[in-house]
This record gives sequence, structure tokens and C-alpha cells, in this order.
Amino acid sequence: MSINLADRGVVRSESGLYVYSEQVDSWVVRTQKPVSYEIRFVDDVLDPRRRDLVDFGGRTDGRLRRFVVVDSKVDLLHGDRIRAYFDQHGAECALSVVPADETVKDFETAARIVREIDEFGINRRTEPIIVFGGGVLMDIVGLVGSLYRRGTPFVRVPTTLIGLVDAGVGAKTGVNFNGHKNRLGTYFPADLTLLDRSFLGTVDRRHIGNGLAEILKIALIKDLRLFELLEEHGPELLGNKFQGHNRAGDIVLRRAIHGMLEELQPNLWEATLERCVDYGHTFSPTVEMHALPALLHGEAVCVDMALTTVMATRRGLMTEAECHRVFEVMRRLELPSWDPHLRSDLLVKALQDTVRHRDGLQRLPLPVGIGDVTFVNDVTAEEIAAAVENQRVIGTARNV
Amino acid sequence: MSINLADRGVVRSESGLYVYSEQVDSWVVRTQKPVSYEIRFVDDVLDPRRRDLVDFGGRTDGRLRRFVVVDSKVDLLHGDRIRAYFDQHGAECALSVVPADETVKDFETAARIVREIDEFGINRRTEPIIVFGGGVLMDIVGLVGSLYRRGTPFVRVPTTLIGLVDAGVGAKTGVNFNGHKNRLGTYFPADLTLLDRSFLGTVDRRHIGNGLAEILKIALIKDLRLFELLEEHGPELLGNKFQGHNRAGDIVLRRAIHGMLEELQPNLWEATLERCVDYGHTFSPTVEMHALPALLHGEAVCVDMALTTVMATRRGLMTEAECHRVFEVMRRLELPSWDPHLRSDLLVKALQDTVRHRDGLQRLPLPVGIGDVTFVNDVTAEEIAAAVENQRVIGTARNV
Repeated sequence: MSINLADRGVVRSESGLYVYSEQVDSWVVRTQKPVSYEIRFVDDVLDPRRRDLVDFGGRTDGRLRRFVVVDSKVDLLHGDRIRAYFDQHGAECALSVVPADETVKDFETAARIVREIDEFGINRRTEPIIVFGGGVLMDIVGLVGSLYRRGTPFVRVPTTLIGLVDAGVGAKTGVNFNGHKNRLGTYFPADLTLLDRSFLGTVDRRHIGNGLAEILKIALIKDLRLFELLEEHGPELLGNKFQGHNRAGDIVLRRAIHGMLEELQPNLWEATLERCVDYGHTFSPTVEMHALPALLHGEAVCVDMALTTVMATRRGLMTEAECHRVFEVMRRLELPSWDPHLRSDLLVKALQDTVRHRDGLQRLPLPVGIGDVTFVNDVTAEEIAAAVENQRVIGTARNV
Repeated sequence: MSINLADRGVVRSESGLYVYSEQVDSWVVRTQKPVSYEIRFVDDVLDPRRRDLVDFGGRTDGRLRRFVVVDSKVDLLHGDRIRAYFDQHGAECALSVVPADETVKDFETAARIVREIDEFGINRRTEPIIVFGGGVLMDIVGLVGSLYRRGTPFVRVPTTLIGLVDAGVGAKTGVNFNGHKNRLGTYFPADLTLLDRSFLGTVDRRHIGNGLAEILKIALIKDLRLFELLEEHGPELLGNKFQGHNRAGDIVLRRAIHGMLEELQPNLWEATLERCVDYGHTFSPTVEMHALPALLHGEAVCVDMALTTVMATRRGLMTEAECHRVFEVMRRLELPSWDPHLRSDLLVKALQDTVRHRDGLQRLPLPVGIGDVTFVNDVTAEEIAAAVENQRVIGTARNV
């Protein structure tokens, strides 16, 4: 604790603690919260010989107790193995099966999980909540963990591609509220995230594309090589779902995660609001909520990237050839580059809300060529209207 | 970002950033969140010549815009001056008047405030939410600030004694949920807290006592001199409400706040769960919720302290004389030292929940004499039953 000396005197004791003084009119508390978390690749996390899921956290009177949240689709496909895994390790489990998609990413779903945790009862620091699910469920459970008794650790096992490369990598939690995407949330990373690509084998093709959109984002703003890998291997990855011996898939996953962490690590609490990983996330939050449930998150991000690719091209930041290369990759990843919800009045409103989110400035990331980025603050309604009209033409024509 | 080197190789670049490697199977993110906040005594914060309330934060296109939450009782008494203050400073304000007491300390009240903030629209980092109110409202608005867009700064102006010495000093936010006190919350201190004791002049006598209970807590576990001041000046402070030239009041406030900060500063996120400031907060969360709305927070804390004073005495940690001195101060502060809700079955249940909160151990702070503390982990249902029976006798007899 340091004490403001502006007005009055204060005595520092030899122990380094401050001595009480009647004269103090202001105290300034200064401290730092240490945060660390691990993201670990694991082959077949539910193999009974693997202990990753049970070795993190502690025991209560020798008993291993865990509250486990499982997405309802994951439960249908993998619920038996999940139950068997914890049984084999002698864990007393409460298993909460939650249907999770963007339409129920709300406080009520979080509240339901909290009530179930209350019922089971967990120790605050040593009995981590475990979640198996995609980005939506991890965001909800992360919020629950951050709020429950002001912070209970949690472990993430992403089961979708977007979970593996995006939601499972960062520190953000959140739920939609009052019609706004992630309006309520916290920064609260899972202590441990276990990345097991075998879950992707049961993900449908559209949801693989959903995750590839966030990988494309990283490629566009900072990793030309990753873009080239998507150009070359994208359709193949859509088909094989990162399964089997898969060198292209391994490299794509690692480059995407590494690129994301490089941006997050120095700016985990978003002290800097010019974030290149916000690319594709300027117009999409409003568009996604407006279109709900038509567009998946990654799809909404993709139509935002298509729009801003056009804007960058109109500003001379990209060549026409690069622009078409980007749209072509979107097509090959079976991602939308146009959506009828992209009306310019809605986009203007979306930008206004994002300006509040970015504290008064647009701070709009735009690609520079492929693999680099710049930030602009001067986008007008006219520019948006013109760009979205160009986008509509390119986006709707491309499949002809 | 550091990368786990256990299994595979990694190359560190000269810039200190990590270079991508295909061989990495685990990343460990390590960082620190810097936190600082100020608590400032101010004489008459609503004096138009004072700029404390408008100088913190920024402007949007030259306009000063603030979202202000005011407790409905405070609004009746001081609303005109609050409005006039912001008018005089040319601020565009949305003023949200919220009836706040423990019975509406819930997510719905927080949600209502969020909707109003959405309607007014604030920039995320430079337009702090300002709250005038007591502990309950500050806790709710703190939670709103911590969740809104994952963190929006806020400024606290406590208007009750418990707000000045307790809720306004620390970092905790929260709402009750599922019948449990503060079951959902965060650590999110206000960037600035302005302590203006003139608000206490309109607080009723019972609520002054409510705040004195938290001051008594600090006295009992770490500050004998503060206890003596309460013995000597307690009734006088109840009467004059810390108003006018008030040397005793000034010293009592400063010692209480200083003592609190000394404990919070090194342990703001409660990495250590043996917290002496948890004294009086072992049984009281359950008792308070159970008795709702019969006991104010400080009153519930006081009956917990009375119980644990008896327990300490039975264990020989305090003398009979010290025990009676404590009960006598409670009487002089017009605080309850007994309550019919103190049934031993409820107290056992309360301890069980607190054990979960303290991660599997009781970590029960007990006073040692007056002004010191120890922690115990071996309290039994029998000890509770015997102590509460002693307490009942002392507590009910004292007014005879």
C-alpha cells in the first residue's frame, strides 16, 4: 500500500509496511494480480491412462470430486466415455448436460449451472469446474467460474474447432445480454485447456468451417504462410476434420494458436484497444445478434472480414488480386462472404456500438495486403454503403 | 508468453518474443494485471468548487457524459444537490435511482442498471459509472462495472458508515444468488472512492451502528487502541454521526480504513484464505440470509462476533473480563449480541458452507485477547451448541 503524500505526512516503518498516521487523507492501493494458464495438446484426453483431467486440482478428505459441464450434443456422442473416464479414476462427479448455442448464451443458462454447482457443492479453489464443449459453452462456464464465490478455477476441453483455436485459447468469458453480444463478461482464463483434436472427428462440416474462419482471421492480419496453408489445404481439412496423421492440420492449428497467444499475452486485459485479433469483430457482433440463429459466430466474422477486405481494397491497402484471393479462400472454406443482413444502416449502428466498446474511436483493423494490418478511425457511412454494395456483387457472384 | 519446454524444443527470438515452432505441444501464458485504486477523504464532495467527481475519466468529443446510480433514499435527501453538481459542471447525466437493500441485492437489480447503461451509452474506459449509496448498492454497481463490456471503471461515493469503512474500501463486488450471500461476484475495486462523512449526518442511528460493527471487527482482531476509542466514544459517535469538528470520529474512521487496507493490500484476490478481516463473517452470511430482512449486515456480523467471542473465551483465548468488555461495547453501540435465528443446526450448516468457501478448511478467525487473532480448524457441532447457549444467556441477560 502506498499512501498519497500530496497533502500530509506519513511514516514508513522499517518492515516496509506503512505506519498509521492521523494525517493521511488519501490511500492509493497498488498491486498486481499474477495470472498464468496452460494450453496443452493431448491425444485422446479420455484415454483412461491419461491423467490430465484428474491431476489438476485437489482432493477433499481423499475424495476426488468434480463438477463437469458437458454440451448436450457432446454428451450424445461422448457422454459414455466421459462418465467412464471419471469412474475409472474414482471421481465422484456431478455431470451437468447443457444444450448450448448462441441463442441460449445468456445469464439464465449460467444461473442454471450455478444452481447445480450449489447443489453438488465444491471447494472454492481446489475442485475445478470442468467443461466439455464449444466456444459458447466455454464462454458461459468461464463466466460462471469467474463469478462463483468470486472465482473458482476451471478446465476447458474444447470439442469444436472454434473452441480449439479461439475460445479455448484466450481469457474472455461472457454471455449475451439485452440483445448485445457478450455484453456481460470477464477476463478469466481457464487454468488448463486440453486440446484434443479427436473431438473434431464428430463435428459437422459447417462447424469445421466456423472454426476455420477464426484461423483465416489470424492468417489475414499476421500470417501469410498460414493463409497459404488454408489456400492449399483448406478444403482437405474441411473433409478430414483434422483427423488421422495430419501434418497440414497440425501446423494450421499450431500457427493459429501461436498467433493468437502472441497477441493476447502482452494485452490480456485489453489495456490496448487497437487489437489486430479484433479483425472481423467490428461489425459482426451486431450482425450476428441480428441474424440469430442464421449465422454461426465464425460465419458472422467471415462476412465482416469480407466487408473489410473490400474496404481495404477500396483504400488501396490491398490489390484487387489479393482481394479476390481472400474471397476465393472463403469460398473454398465454404464460408459466406455475403449475407442479406448486411444492410448499411445496421452496419453503421454496429460501428457506433463498437466505437463505444473501443472507448470512443473506431480503431478498425484493416488488412494490409495479406498478413499485415493497420488501424483506421475515419470510416464514414458513405464508405460503408459503397463497400457493402461492392461486397454484395462479389459475394453473390462468386458461386455463379 | 513462455512456452513449456518439457517435451519439445523452442527458439527464443532476440526481441524477446517466442518464435513459432511446429514442435510445441504446450503453451504457458504468464502475466500480471496491474491494479491501483485510490480512497480519498473529501469534505463535501458536492460542493461545486470540488472537481473530484468530474476530473476522473475523460470526455467524448469535448462532452462530459456520466452515468450516475443513486440509492433511492439518498436521492430523496441529496438528489437535488447531486443533479445541481453535475449541471454546474456541464455534465450530460443519466441518473438511475435504485432502491437498494439486502433483499434486492440480486442479479435482476444489476441487470436493470445494465439495461439503463445500454440505453444511455458510455465509452468503455473513459466514462466511469458513478455510484452514490451504501454497501449493498456499491457491491451491485461494482459487479455491473466488472461485467459491463468485461470491465468499465467506476467511482464510489459511500453514503453510509458501512460503505465508508468497509464496502467502499475493498475490491469485492457481488450479489446474492440462490439464497446465498454474495454467491456471485468479482474482485473489481472502484478506481476512485470519495469518502465524504457529511452524508452520515442523514443516516439513521441504526445504520450508524451497522457501520460501527465493521469498525469493531477491525478493533477486535488487530487494533486494541481502536477498541478503546469505541469504548470511550462509541455512544457519542452514534449520536453525533461523525459530524462537525470530530476528532474522535476522524481517528476512528482512519484507523478502521487503515487497518482494513493493511489486510487487503497484500491479499486483494484472497490467495490466502486465512483472512483476519473474515472475522464475524463465518456464520453471519447464512444467518443474515436466513433472517432477511431482520438483521442488517453489520448486525449479523456482530452476532457472529459475539458467538466467536464466547468460543474464544471457552477456549481460554480471552479472559471472562475481556469477553464481558466486548459484549459491553456491543451494548453501548446498540448492536445485537444475540439473535433468535442463532440455532445450532443453522450454525453448523453455515460453517459447512464457509468451509467450502475457504476451500475445505474452517480457517475460523478467533480473537486472542482484544486486538489479536488466531485461526482454528477444529470447531465441532458440540462446541457450537455449547457456545451459542452461553451466548444466549449473556446476550439476552445484558439488558436486564
